[in-house]
Amino acid sequence: MSRHAEFRCQRRVEFADTDCAGILHFSMFGRYAEEAEHAFMRSLGVSSFQRAEDGSIHGFPRLGVRSEFRRPVSFEDLLEIHLWISHVSQRSLEYCARFSHQGEEVARLRYAVACCHVLPDGRLRPMPLPESLRERIEVADRERLSFRER
Amino acid sequence: MSRHAEFRCQRRVEFADTDCAGILHFSMFGRYAEEAEHAFMRSLGVSSFQRAEDGSIHGFPRLGVRSEFRRPVSFEDLLEIHLWISHVSQRSLEYCARFSHQGEEVARLRYAVACCHVLPDGRLRPMPLPESLRERIEVADRERLSFRER
Amino acid sequence: MSRHAEFRCQRRVEFADTDCAGILHFSMFGRYAEEAEHAFMRSLGVSSFQRAEDGSIHGFPRLGVRSEFRRPVSFEDLLEIHLWISHVSQRSLEYCARFSHQGEEVARLRYAVACCHVLPDGRLRPMPLPESLRERIEVADRERLSFRER
Amino acid sequence: MSRHAEFRCQRRVEFADTDCAGILHFSMFGRYAEEAEHAFMRSLGVSSFQRAEDGSIHGFPRLGVRSEFRRPVSFEDLLEIHLWISHVSQRSLEYCARFSHQGEEVARLRYAVACCHVLPDGRLRPMPLPESLRERIEVADRERLSFRER
Repeated sequence: MSRHAEFRCQRRVEFADTDCAGILHFSMFGRYAEEAEHAFMRSLGVSSFQRAEDGSIHGFPRLGVRSEFRRPVSFEDLLEIHLWISHVSQRSLEYCARFSHQGEEVARLRYAVACCHVLPDGRLRPMPLPESLRERIEVADRERLSFRER
Repeated sequence: MSRHAEFRCQRRVEFADTDCAGILHFSMFGRYAEEAEHAFMRSLGVSSFQRAEDGSIHGFPRLGVRSEFRRPVSFEDLLEIHLWISHVSQRSLEYCARFSHQGEEVARLRYAVACCHVLPDGRLRPMPLPESLRERIEVADRERLSFRER
Repeated sequence: MSRHAEFRCQRRVEFADTDCAGILHFSMFGRYAEEAEHAFMRSLGVSSFQRAEDGSIHGFPRLGVRSEFRRPVSFEDLLEIHLWISHVSQRSLEYCARFSHQGEEVARLRYAVACCHVLPDGRLRPMPLPESLRERIEVADRERLSFRER
Repeated sequence: MSRHAEFRCQRRVEFADTDCAGILHFSMFGRYAEEAEHAFMRSLGVSSFQRAEDGSIHGFPRLGVRSEFRRPVSFEDLLEIHLWISHVSQRSLEYCARFSHQGEEVARLRYAVACCHVLPDGRLRPMPLPESLRERIEVADRERLSFRER
């Protein structure tokens, strides 16, 4: 099976995702990126979340997220999301996500996720990336997104 | 221990809860009512949600919700929520919730919740209300909210 | 131009839309129905929301929503949404929405929206349905959804 | 009037804010921080959002957010939020936010907001911080939060 390093999809800005400033609420970019990531995983036949017999959960909680918002977007705008893998380690992945609207970048994110068991009491136990995932992915031949911040 | 039939609290309309029409998104009234209900339960020493050793979950999923929105409310408005129990059966409760702002009703909801086990595969198994809850609650001596609808 | 009375689309249950009971949060059904309604309007060339030169907003706030939840659905489930117009009046529309998963109904909603100006101070001023909308829609030749509730 | 540099408040983790991994969804930390910021501004008599006569909006959109998630938190956990100003410029502010639960840090954020007019068409026009805000705030005598990230 071939390996994949990036994924592209579109996301419509929905009404409830905007705020009273008339624009998409910033917190939604992190959610839209997560949706794209889950669609990427589905396209590889991998589920981003599974509940085992013993009630434990296997998922990919975020370790940290960095984001930059360049232009506001509005209800019904159709965003292009370009997601790629910028790093793979034993127990974690780093993704970059670029959001565009009508050819212009509107936001960018970079974030790391850890492969974890979520125990029934809510604690996380890190675990290696499953082999079924590792054999389907690779780091993209693309820049790792950088951020302006002072 | 005494029995309780109603609960009052306040909820600030937060920025992310509004939409680009400049007002609180209608879906948030159901969430705010649920928050008030959970605060009511906490005040009785009852948790609205518990995860058992076997990974099964004990909670109160909604069976149905009826709502009416009378006046829009905006960012930073401080809402008064008045919640009361309008019916108790073996396995379910019915709540009424009235939302006011500056003395005027802005929305009302009536909804039923069922006491359920949520099994690890996501199926619901109805169960009787726990005795620890039943002995703390009673139906309020108040009208059951009605709705205009044609 | 032909008139339309109903609309069908699909909606994936996204991760952030679920809650710690492991299922789609009930408040999301109202949001998913609204998304379907907006997609329906777009398919007719009508926008569900417009900001005029004077800052006033033209939209379709909900007057009331009735909902019934029959089966829980989970992360990554692909829902079928069937939305139809069950009533049209001078200033409002009533929609019915049925959600299915793998051929079984999981939830139903019925709700009315009013055509309104939202003034800059947040007040709503009802207005007639625009002619551009009225000439594209009609009431569906289908049952109006009913609800179990005691 | 005195100047203020920091703010502390509490936030209960609400049910709808959790996800099917059983923990608070990461995107909510940015929302909770924004809520704390708005409460801070209210305590200074400053509104974080105003709509002018001409329909233009005056607000503080985020330029970028950096976040790190250290421990999961669950439904009904009561979080302590400590927010402080780490930088002030002509047209923007930088905030740091530390979230704790039972004395342990669970997450941290650092983010910049710009003072802007949001025009009726959705474009942002940066503007200087209003004098009424500038005279009430100062940079906190505290570390600027740093982040682990590779």
